[in-house]
Amino acid sequence: MYLQSDGKKNNNSSLTFKRKIFNDPVYGFITIPDNIVFEIIEHPYFQRLRRIKQTALTHLVYPGALHTRFHHAIGAMHLMTQAINALRMKGKEITDKEAEAATIAILLHDIGHGPYSHTLEKSIIFETSHEDLSEIFMARLNEIFSGKLSLAIEIFNDTYKKKFLHQLISSQLDVDRLDYLKRDSFFTGVYEGIVSTDRIIEMLDVVDDELVVEAKGIYSIEKFIIARRLMFWQVYLHKTVLASEYMLMKALKRAKILCENGENLFTTPIFKLFLKNNFTKNDFLNDKTLLDKFSQLDDYDIFTSLKVWCNHPDIILSELSKSLVYRRLFKIELQNEKFSDEYLQTIKMQTSKKFSIKDDEIEYFVFSDITSNYAYDPHGGKIKILFKDGKILDIAEASDQLNISVLSKPVTKYFICYPKTIKFAF
Amino acid sequence: MYLQSDGKKNNNSSLTFKRKIFNDPVYGFITIPDNIVFEIIEHPYFQRLRRIKQTALTHLVYPGALHTRFHHAIGAMHLMTQAINALRMKGKEITDKEAEAATIAILLHDIGHGPYSHTLEKSIIFETSHEDLSEIFMARLNEIFSGKLSLAIEIFNDTYKKKFLHQLISSQLDVDRLDYLKRDSFFTGVYEGIVSTDRIIEMLDVVDDELVVEAKGIYSIEKFIIARRLMFWQVYLHKTVLASEYMLMKALKRAKILCENGENLFTTPIFKLFLKNNFTKNDFLNDKTLLDKFSQLDDYDIFTSLKVWCNHPDIILSELSKSLVYRRLFKIELQNEKFSDEYLQTIKMQTSKKFSIKDDEIEYFVFSDITSNYAYDPHGGKIKILFKDGKILDIAEASDQLNISVLSKPVTKYFICYPKTIKFAF
Amino acid sequence: MYLQSDGKKNNNSSLTFKRKIFNDPVYGFITIPDNIVFEIIEHPYFQRLRRIKQTALTHLVYPGALHTRFHHAIGAMHLMTQAINALRMKGKEITDKEAEAATIAILLHDIGHGPYSHTLEKSIIFETSHEDLSEIFMARLNEIFSGKLSLAIEIFNDTYKKKFLHQLISSQLDVDRLDYLKRDSFFTGVYEGIVSTDRIIEMLDVVDDELVVEAKGIYSIEKFIIARRLMFWQVYLHKTVLASEYMLMKALKRAKILCENGENLFTTPIFKLFLKNNFTKNDFLNDKTLLDKFSQLDDYDIFTSLKVWCNHPDIILSELSKSLVYRRLFKIELQNEKFSDEYLQTIKMQTSKKFSIKDDEIEYFVFSDITSNYAYDPHGGKIKILFKDGKILDIAEASDQLNISVLSKPVTKYFICYPKTIKFAF
Amino acid sequence: MYLQSDGKKNNNSSLTFKRKIFNDPVYGFITIPDNIVFEIIEHPYFQRLRRIKQTALTHLVYPGALHTRFHHAIGAMHLMTQAINALRMKGKEITDKEAEAATIAILLHDIGHGPYSHTLEKSIIFETSHEDLSEIFMARLNEIFSGKLSLAIEIFNDTYKKKFLHQLISSQLDVDRLDYLKRDSFFTGVYEGIVSTDRIIEMLDVVDDELVVEAKGIYSIEKFIIARRLMFWQVYLHKTVLASEYMLMKALKRAKILCENGENLFTTPIFKLFLKNNFTKNDFLNDKTLLDKFSQLDDYDIFTSLKVWCNHPDIILSELSKSLVYRRLFKIELQNEKFSDEYLQTIKMQTSKKFSIKDDEIEYFVFSDITSNYAYDPHGGKIKILFKDGKILDIAEASDQLNISVLSKPVTKYFICYPKTIKFAF
Repeated sequence: MYLQSDGKKNNNSSLTFKRKIFNDPVYGFITIPDNIVFEIIEHPYFQRLRRIKQTALTHLVYPGALHTRFHHAIGAMHLMTQAINALRMKGKEITDKEAEAATIAILLHDIGHGPYSHTLEKSIIFETSHEDLSEIFMARLNEIFSGKLSLAIEIFNDTYKKKFLHQLISSQLDVDRLDYLKRDSFFTGVYEGIVSTDRIIEMLDVVDDELVVEAKGIYSIEKFIIARRLMFWQVYLHKTVLASEYMLMKALKRAKILCENGENLFTTPIFKLFLKNNFTKNDFLNDKTLLDKFSQLDDYDIFTSLKVWCNHPDIILSELSKSLVYRRLFKIELQNEKFSDEYLQTIKMQTSKKFSIKDDEIEYFVFSDITSNYAYDPHGGKIKILFKDGKILDIAEASDQLNISVLSKPVTKYFICYPKTIKFAF
Repeated sequence: MYLQSDGKKNNNSSLTFKRKIFNDPVYGFITIPDNIVFEIIEHPYFQRLRRIKQTALTHLVYPGALHTRFHHAIGAMHLMTQAINALRMKGKEITDKEAEAATIAILLHDIGHGPYSHTLEKSIIFETSHEDLSEIFMARLNEIFSGKLSLAIEIFNDTYKKKFLHQLISSQLDVDRLDYLKRDSFFTGVYEGIVSTDRIIEMLDVVDDELVVEAKGIYSIEKFIIARRLMFWQVYLHKTVLASEYMLMKALKRAKILCENGENLFTTPIFKLFLKNNFTKNDFLNDKTLLDKFSQLDDYDIFTSLKVWCNHPDIILSELSKSLVYRRLFKIELQNEKFSDEYLQTIKMQTSKKFSIKDDEIEYFVFSDITSNYAYDPHGGKIKILFKDGKILDIAEASDQLNISVLSKPVTKYFICYPKTIKFAF
Repeated sequence: MYLQSDGKKNNNSSLTFKRKIFNDPVYGFITIPDNIVFEIIEHPYFQRLRRIKQTALTHLVYPGALHTRFHHAIGAMHLMTQAINALRMKGKEITDKEAEAATIAILLHDIGHGPYSHTLEKSIIFETSHEDLSEIFMARLNEIFSGKLSLAIEIFNDTYKKKFLHQLISSQLDVDRLDYLKRDSFFTGVYEGIVSTDRIIEMLDVVDDELVVEAKGIYSIEKFIIARRLMFWQVYLHKTVLASEYMLMKALKRAKILCENGENLFTTPIFKLFLKNNFTKNDFLNDKTLLDKFSQLDDYDIFTSLKVWCNHPDIILSELSKSLVYRRLFKIELQNEKFSDEYLQTIKMQTSKKFSIKDDEIEYFVFSDITSNYAYDPHGGKIKILFKDGKILDIAEASDQLNISVLSKPVTKYFICYPKTIKFAF
Repeated sequence: MYLQSDGKKNNNSSLTFKRKIFNDPVYGFITIPDNIVFEIIEHPYFQRLRRIKQTALTHLVYPGALHTRFHHAIGAMHLMTQAINALRMKGKEITDKEAEAATIAILLHDIGHGPYSHTLEKSIIFETSHEDLSEIFMARLNEIFSGKLSLAIEIFNDTYKKKFLHQLISSQLDVDRLDYLKRDSFFTGVYEGIVSTDRIIEMLDVVDDELVVEAKGIYSIEKFIIARRLMFWQVYLHKTVLASEYMLMKALKRAKILCENGENLFTTPIFKLFLKNNFTKNDFLNDKTLLDKFSQLDDYDIFTSLKVWCNHPDIILSELSKSLVYRRLFKIELQNEKFSDEYLQTIKMQTSKKFSIKDDEIEYFVFSDITSNYAYDPHGGKIKILFKDGKILDIAEASDQLNISVLSKPVTKYFICYPKTIKFAF
C-alpha cells in the first residue's frame, strides 16, 4: 500500500510521524496527512472497503471499473486536503484540529456501505441503512480512538459551528462527488465524465460560513453538472448495469426465501448470518459483536456464493446466478413511457412456459420498474456563485444559458427486463 | 461490456457482423474484429478471466491494481490488430485467415492461468502448469468451434510456416509484454513503466520471416527494456508484494495439509476438489469434466476461504489468513547477500516462542528465499534491429550505450520474511 | 517534421509511396494518407501556415497556446481519415477518390487565413475575406496540381452530389471544430474543453445523404456543445484576449494611417505592400503574383513591426505597441448591459489628459464594443440525432434536458477597454 | 496570462498579495508564490523570453515544439516550489528567505539566452556567452529591485553556505533538467521522454548539505538518464534539427559578412546593431543601454529577416534562407566514422557546379562537423543515492545493472550536410 514508511521527523511537529504515500493512478501521489488518519486507514473496519467495489457490477459493462470504496475514500481525503489548502490560501481560518477532523469525516463518509450496497438494501438482506451503519461505525471507532473522532463526527452530522466544513463533505459540490465522478470516469474509460477537480477546488471560497464558487468558475460548474448527467446515463444507469443489479437483487431474494424455507444453501458463515436475519439498527446497538461480523461481509461473500449457486437444483436461483456469473445478462428495454400490461403479460407467459415456473414466481425472471435521476438535485443544497461585487446567486440563476431548472427535474425512465432467450422465441 | 451491439452490415463482407466495442481506460476504444473472436470472448472459459486479477496481490501495495487477465487479453488482442495493420502497411502479406488466427492466439495465450497463478502452482495446489492448461483449453475450444482455431493453435505452438506471427505472440517484444507493461503501469499508477506501444508497433517490420525493429526505434527499445526492469523492482518484485505472495502460498500449503489430515475446512466445493487432489495433465486429458471444474475456480474461491479461515482454530492457518485479510503483512528484508543462519535462527526462535508453535512448523512464519529477474532475457529470443543498409543486429550489439550484456544477467536477491510483531520484540 | 520518410511499397498500390508520419502531442502519430496530400503539405502555400498561430494573441493569457494553423489543418486531416474509416465500417460507400478529395478539402479549409486573421480583416488591412482567399488559393493549387483538386473543391463548395462529405468539412459538428476544440484545449491547458473526438466520430452515420449521430451519442453531443461554450468564454472571448486583439487592431489602424500620411514606417517589404494598399478579391484575380506575395505574410511580419514601433515617435503607435510587446495590456471591463455614455466620457477625458492626445484620436486608447457568441449556432446547420427506430431529430428536440433553444440564442456582452494607468488615476 | 488576479489577503502574511495562477498544459495550475517573483516575471527582461522558443528550430521536425523559454522558466519555478516543500516535509530547514531566493534563482537561470541561442553564439553574432549575459541581467535586476535578489544571486553562483540550494538549480538532477525534459517531451509529442518529476522530487533528500536521492528512487533515476539519452537522439540532436540549426548558422554568418562588406541588408534595427558589432562582456558592462537593446532581440527579428532574405540577390543568402523558410532542408548524413575527404570533395564539386559558387564559399552549402553528447555527464556533478543504512553512493556505483560508466562516455557522431538537389544529381 505504501511506497514510503520510514519514521521521519515531520517539520511541523516535534513528534515522529511515519509519512505514508499512496500511488494513485488518478492523482499521482497521495500523502496521508497525519498519524491518526493513518491509524484509521489501518483499522480492519476501513481495510474491509478494499473488498467492496465502488460501482458494484458496472465492471460487467466497463471491465476497468473494479476500483473500490477504499480507493475512493482515500481519493476524497486527498481532495479534502487540497480544498483546505485552497481555502487557507484565501485567508479562511481552518485550525489544524478542524482540518484533521474534516479529513477524518470524509474518510469515513461511506464506511457503512456493505457489498453491492444499493442492491443488498433493496433485496432486504438487512434492514439497516448504510447511513445508520456509518453512524454506528464512527461511534465505535471514536471509542477505539478514545474520543479523538468527536469533532469529525460533529462535522459529519452538521452540528459543528462552521457549516462550510460539513458542506465540503456533503453538498451538491462536495469532495465526495468530485472524487467519484473523476475516479469512475477514469476507471470506466468514459473520459468525458472527468471533471477538473483542480480548477473547481481552486475556485472555492467561503462567505458567511457558506461554501461558494467564484464567478469565473461558473463554466466549470456547468460542465461538472453536465458531466454528472453524462455519467448517470452512460455509466450509473447504463441499462445493462441496471439489468445486472436487478438480477443480483432477485437472486439474493430467492436465496433468502430458500434459506428461510430451510434449504441448506452454500454461503460463507457470515453471509448466512445476514441472509437468515433481518437485523435492525437496534440489533447493532444492542449487540456490539454484530458490527464486527458485518465488517467481515464483502463482495467476496456474495459473488462466491453466486458462483456455487450456479449448480443449485432450484432453477430460479441457478438461472439467475449463471446469468450473472457467465454474463448472459437479461435483455432490458428502456423507454420514456410505461410498458403496457399486455406486453408485460406476453413476456411473462412466454417465460413461464419456457422455464416451467409457477405464476407467482415469474417476477424473478420478468420484472419492470422505474429509474430516475437529477443532474442537479434541488434538494441537495444549492451551488452558490460568488460575483466580484459580492452578490451570491444559485447556479440556477447565475448561469445565463444552461437551463438548470430543467436539469433539476428528475428524468424518469421505465424498463422491463427478461431472459434473452425469450425474446428470440417471439 | 459493450457500448455498441447492433447488427450492422460490415463493409467488407456480405455477412452481418455485430460490431462490438470495449471501453478501455488504457487505449480508449477497442473494437472486436470479428464474430469468431467475439464468440470466444463470450465463452465461459474466457469469461472466467474476469475474476482473475492480472497482478494477484499487488493491489495490497498499489490499490488500483485490480485489473484482470480478461482485460489484459483484450488489450493484447488490440495491439495485435495494430501490429497486423502496421505490417500490412509496410507491404508484408498477412491473409485475413492469418490475421484472425493470430488474434485468437493472443487472446488465448494466458487462458490456462488459475487464480493467483504463480502462487498456486508453487503451493502445489495442482501439478499441472498453466502452459499445459492453456494447451488443453485451446484444444477443447477448437472442438467446440469445429476446428476453427486450428491455425491459431499452430501459430501459438510455432508450428506454422510464418514464424513472425508466433513472435508477435511470444518473444522478447511480443504484444503480450507490451500490453501488460502498459496496463500494469497504468493501473498501479507507476507511470514510469508506461511504454509507447504506438511507436514500437509502428517500428516493427519483418525480414526473412523474422520480426525486427527499424533502427530509428532503437531508443524506444532501450526504454522498453529499462521500463520493464523498473516495473520488476517497483511492482512485480516489490518486497511487500513478495511477502504477501509467499504468505498466501504458506496459508494454502497449511490448508492443504489440514485438509489431507481430515479437517473439515471451509472452502467452496470446487476449491476443495483441487485442494484435496493433485491433478496432473493426464487427469485433465482423461476426465473431460475436470477442465469445466477448473474453469469455475477463480480469485473469489481463494480469498473467500482465506476470510473464513481467519476464525479457524489452527493458529497457523488463522494467523496467516488474518495477516492477509487485515493487511498486517509480515516484515520482509531484502538484500544482495544470503542471510546468516544465525540471524535466521534467532528470528525463528523468537517467533516460535511468541506463537508457541512447534519447530517443524516454524517455516510457516519465518521463511527465506531467493528472487531474481532479467531485464532482457537472453533465453527469450533476441530483439533484432534492422538498419537502413539492411544489416540486422541484436539490440545487445546495436545499442551503443546501454549495456545489455549486463541487463541480460539475472539479478538475484535474498529475502527473509517473518511476523512484524517479532521484530518489535528484539 | 517526419519520423519516417523512406520509400516503401504501399500494400494497396503498385506505386511506391513515401509514408510520412507526424508526431502530434494531441493524437500521437498522424499518418499522411497519400502522395498528393503530402505534396500539398510541402507546398509553400501550406508551409506558411506554420507561421500563423491558430489562436492569435491567446498565448498572452495561456502561454502554451502557440500552436499553428498548420498543426490544426494536419489534425483535422487526421480526424477526416478516422471519420471516413468509421463510416466505411458502417457500410457507407466512400470511394478512394472521394476519400482523397475530402481529405484535401479539410486540409485546405483555412488556407486563406492571414496572420491574426480576424484582427487584420477588421483593421481593414485588406478587403478580401479569408473565405475568398481560400477559394483563390485552392484554384491556384488546382492549376499547379493539374486539376487533381477539382473534386476536393466541389466537396468544399458543396456542389458535389454526396452532401455528407461537405458536412464533414463544414457543419455544426465538422472535423474542423472537433480538432480545434480539442487542440486549443490541449495547448491552453484548459482541459475541460477537451472533447472525445474518438467517441463522436465512432457515433457518426449517414442517412439519406445527411450526417447524423447515433442516439447513444447524445450525451457526448451535449458535452461537445457545453465544452464549446466553455471554450468561448474561457479562451476565445477571454476578456484579456479580447483586449489584446482590439489593441492590435488599433495599432494596425494607426500604422496604416501614418503610412498613408507618408510616414516612413518600419515594416517588412511585404507587410508594407498590404499596409499601403487595400487589395480586393479582383486584384488577386487580376494579378497572379499578388497571391504569392500574400503567401509571404505571416505573424512574424506583424509582430516584428510592432516591436520596432515601440520606439516610434508617434505616441499612439508606440504606446499601443509597447502595451502589447511588454504585455502591459489595457484594462477591460465586460458586462451584460451597455456602458453609460457618461462613464465612457469620463474615461476618455482622463485618458486624453494623461496622454495629451486629441479628441479625434482618443478612440485608439478608449474603445467599447459588443461581443457575442452562440454555443449552438442555429444557422450553422443542425446536429441530427438518429434513433434506433430510424427517427431523426435535431439535438435541440432530442435532448431531454439541455435547453438547446436557449443555447442557440446569442449571448451578447458589452466591453470597454482603456489603459490601466487611467483606472489608477480615478 | 493569469486566471486570477484579485487582491486577496494571504493567510500567511498581513500583506495583501495578488495571487496569480498560470494555466500550464504540463502541470495544470502553477501558482506564483509571492510578489517579488511576480514583479520579476512582469519585467520586460523576463517577458522577452515569451518570444524565444525553448527548442529553436525543432518545430520544423516536431510541429508542436513552439514552447518558449518563458514557459520553461515558469515550469522550473513550479518544480522548485515542489522540491522545497518536499525537503521541508522531511525536516530540512529552508527559511522563507531562502525559498524565495532559490525560486528567483531558477526563474532567472536562463535569462541570458538570446534567440536561437546556441546557433547565434556559434555564428559569432556576439561574443558574449549566455552565461555572462545571465550574470549581467541578474545584476541589473538586483539594482532595479533594490538588492532583493542578492541572496538569489549567491545561490545561483554557489557562494551561499547551503550548497544543496544551488544543486537544485544546477546539477545533474536539477529542476531545470526535470522541467525541460518533461516539457520538451510534452510539446514534441515524444512521450517516451516524459519523466516522473513528482516521484523524483518526492525522493530528494539532503545529507551533509548534499542533495541525494533515496535508494528506492534508483529506478526512477535510471529511467531519467535513459529518457534524457532518448531525448538527445530523438529530439535535441535529431539529424534534421541539426541540419536546420547549421543552416541557420551559415545564413547568419553570410548575412554578417555581407553586412560588414557594406551591403544594405534588411533587418530590424536592433538585429542590425548586433550583426554589425561583436559586443563583448565588457561592452555590456561599460554601456548600460546595451543590455536594454539586447533585451529587444528575439526569434522574431531573426526569422523575419530570413523571410526577407529569401529575395536577396546574393544566392548564398537567399538559398539558405529559402531552404529554412520553405522547409526544403538540406540532406544530412550521420555516422559513427569520419567522412572521407574524397566523399566530401565530390559533394563540394557537384554543389559548386550546380550553384556556380566559388570554392571559398562552398562551406556555406556543404559542411561537416561532429556532434556528441553524454547521457550522464560525469563533469556535471554526480547523482548521489542515499541507502537506508546511511551509505551514499554515486548512481554509477549504486545501479546494479545500468552501465553508467558507459553512459558517461560521450557519444560522438560525424555528419555531412548539403543541398538535397545535389544528392539527386549523383
